[in-house]
Amino acid sequence: MTGSAEEIYQATCSAPVNIAVIKYWGKRDTSLILPTNDSLSVTLDQDHLRSVTTARADPSFGDLSSYPDADAAAAHLTDRLWLNGEEELIKPDGRLRRCIDEMRKLRAAKESKDPSLASLSKWGLRICSENNFPTAAGLASSASGFAALIASLAALYELQPEVSSSQLSRIARQGSGSACRSLFGGYVAWQGGKEADGSDSLAVEVAPKSHWPDLHALICVVSDAKKGTPSTAGMQRTVQTSPLLQHRIKEVVPERMAKITEAIQKRDFDTFAAITMADSNNFHACCLDTSPPIFYMNDVSRSIVQLVEEINRASEAEGLGKKLAYTYDAGPNAVLYAPKENMPAILQTIRHYFPSADFDDTFNILGNGANASHRGAQEPQGLPSDLPKGFNQGVIPVHEPGSVRRLIHTQVGGSPRVLERGAGSEALLKDDGTPLRLARVKRA
Amino acid sequence: MTGSAEEIYQATCSAPVNIAVIKYWGKRDTSLILPTNDSLSVTLDQDHLRSVTTARADPSFGDLSSYPDADAAAAHLTDRLWLNGEEELIKPDGRLRRCIDEMRKLRAAKESKDPSLASLSKWGLRICSENNFPTAAGLASSASGFAALIASLAALYELQPEVSSSQLSRIARQGSGSACRSLFGGYVAWQGGKEADGSDSLAVEVAPKSHWPDLHALICVVSDAKKGTPSTAGMQRTVQTSPLLQHRIKEVVPERMAKITEAIQKRDFDTFAAITMADSNNFHACCLDTSPPIFYMNDVSRSIVQLVEEINRASEAEGLGKKLAYTYDAGPNAVLYAPKENMPAILQTIRHYFPSADFDDTFNILGNGANASHRGAQEPQGLPSDLPKGFNQGVIPVHEPGSVRRLIHTQVGGSPRVLERGAGSEALLKDDGTPLRLARVKRA
Repeated sequence: MTGSAEEIYQATCSAPVNIAVIKYWGKRDTSLILPTNDSLSVTLDQDHLRSVTTARADPSFGDLSSYPDADAAAAHLTDRLWLNGEEELIKPDGRLRRCIDEMRKLRAAKESKDPSLASLSKWGLRICSENNFPTAAGLASSASGFAALIASLAALYELQPEVSSSQLSRIARQGSGSACRSLFGGYVAWQGGKEADGSDSLAVEVAPKSHWPDLHALICVVSDAKKGTPSTAGMQRTVQTSPLLQHRIKEVVPERMAKITEAIQKRDFDTFAAITMADSNNFHACCLDTSPPIFYMNDVSRSIVQLVEEINRASEAEGLGKKLAYTYDAGPNAVLYAPKENMPAILQTIRHYFPSADFDDTFNILGNGANASHRGAQEPQGLPSDLPKGFNQGVIPVHEPGSVRRLIHTQVGGSPRVLERGAGSEALLKDDGTPLRLARVKRA
Repeated sequence: MTGSAEEIYQATCSAPVNIAVIKYWGKRDTSLILPTNDSLSVTLDQDHLRSVTTARADPSFGDLSSYPDADAAAAHLTDRLWLNGEEELIKPDGRLRRCIDEMRKLRAAKESKDPSLASLSKWGLRICSENNFPTAAGLASSASGFAALIASLAALYELQPEVSSSQLSRIARQGSGSACRSLFGGYVAWQGGKEADGSDSLAVEVAPKSHWPDLHALICVVSDAKKGTPSTAGMQRTVQTSPLLQHRIKEVVPERMAKITEAIQKRDFDTFAAITMADSNNFHACCLDTSPPIFYMNDVSRSIVQLVEEINRASEAEGLGKKLAYTYDAGPNAVLYAPKENMPAILQTIRHYFPSADFDDTFNILGNGANASHRGAQEPQGLPSDLPKGFNQGVIPVHEPGSVRRLIHTQVGGSPRVLERGAGSEALLKDDGTPLRLARVKRA
């Protein structure tokens, strides 16, 4: 059967950003996106950072059933996709194509088992995706974006629960490696796997958000003049030229994966923080060991490292544990992880040394109303009274205003959400299958 | 016999700075200063950078022969030492003490074989040492300083040729590890050795300056607000905490020592440059992999790396070889190695991107008279006409004037020199055994 004119087959889902604490760097298969090592991440709260995708199937977008030869017909399918209001070309052998085709196959299998189902697998798609955070935030949007794509197609095609999230993660991985980790909430491992076909390279939940809900994150968006090396190109250069990366892959990461997994299960922040910082440094060390060397951290990034290390040193000198941890992805931005109760003091300390950062007060710490956003120059705060006694205030200078451009306070969050099935207020597509919003400015 | 009143037993020697291309980082024995890996350096020209030391022995400074029990008597010996016009305390179990005692033992052995010799080994010493480069130049002076100390005592005690330079290097090593490499000219390897007593941890000549005389060096002194971690403390923290260092020690360095030695023997600058840059990055990667991480390079250091990599990339794209190599020790300063003929263009390029660096024109490239020193703001030079065609001028921005504070142009140089035996114009000691010059300002 085909869908009746009245019926609208559409789903809108959101997916979270994830920030790795054991880093993914290097592919053993660049086309299937199979990593050289396992990685582990914390999923961030979709209330603050998310990608939203609406996916819709309709025979009017193209209908395979009217073509005897499915292969030839595939060419007639007119799937279209918009990202942040700009149409993205779905290249025949590209990552978007592969993800969509894999999802369509799963739907086709479901339809073949139950002929009463509408033959969505044969219909063209309209997909519209938006991030609620500007690219300027310096956060990789590909992970949450591909996760939202896969989640929305899974909802549209009603694949779950028969198809598990881990199975879906295997498909998301082929869109963007770290996207596989954004299909779960809480604490997530990407098992690199051994198989050449990637069948065992997928994400699994290490612990749900509910197991350790009070882990907070402060994203410090660092101003940077020039763009660094794109990670896709950079990681393969490291694989080819860094003698240290091989040691990281064989020895360093396996041991740390085991230790940090145990730390998460025990809610042992001290160990979690130590491994998180060590692995961030180990990853950037391998970038530096690349020829030519790859630099992502800059002097401001390094100042944040030195500040965090000094806070922790002073705290441990008092017989207390670590207060926070830093981690850096392929850019100068710091992500600081800390128990909820430490965050107000950390926030004030960061705002003291890095004045006038735009601050998204998502937890209403400054008390100016929930989600108040504080922009531009701000009153000097001074340092918090509850810093460890031995803390050396001169560890780094107070930086130029705006050296840290923006602060985003968030926390560990849940898995992708189905916001809406069918048409409705959440949809990013209009009834005619065109985007609700189109980008004003064309990309350069 | 003892020295007659008239006779002055004194020697004045100079010793060179050396800059490693395979880095020394980590000790297997901190008291004997035995390294975790071999290293290799280029000796720089003493005409431009040197330490000078005058050593004098005289019975009036204390005389062991008047004490039956040499051990007790040793305490009565009143050796004194001045460094850059300030007296340095010779601590009983310190590095200076050990070096002086080892040299004195060698003299005593010589005297015991030939009783006609003056018994200098029984007399107190006066030692005065100066560097011709300011500490502000950011160059480690301990290597050239301890090498000059050992060389001057060797000349005073007339130990050579019976005692070889490698034997002397074993003693210099116990003053400052890399000092052992400053006892040779040209291209020098420090063989880390295997023995627990350090008997096989010494320097050897890989090739003399005459074998490859046209290698030049440009030292870029980079302004840096705060002092980095002292290398003595830093390297042991790396040994204790960096998983990558172990791989560097076991796998990376041995292979590179063999390859760069061969490159030097063949005067193969391309391979020499590739290994030099890779090992500098590998060393700093291990510093970054330390917990807490150690940062020596800053944003200016990294800009110089990116500039050098781009010049080489563009040159290789034209089918030509690498033009130059960078290397960084435990600080932000770059040392650029290049064949003599490349240096004028390199110099002009560096002065374009890093304006108003004080420049010591030791090779009279700017034609304002030999060794003219150009201070402060300077005319913009523009880029040289003979840069590789494909060179991307936007690879780094033109930096703030003074981002590179000073440029020192020098070349591969020879071994320590005996400037003078007995009293004379070169001596840093007055006839009464006190320093010719005393520091005006006391050290903070």
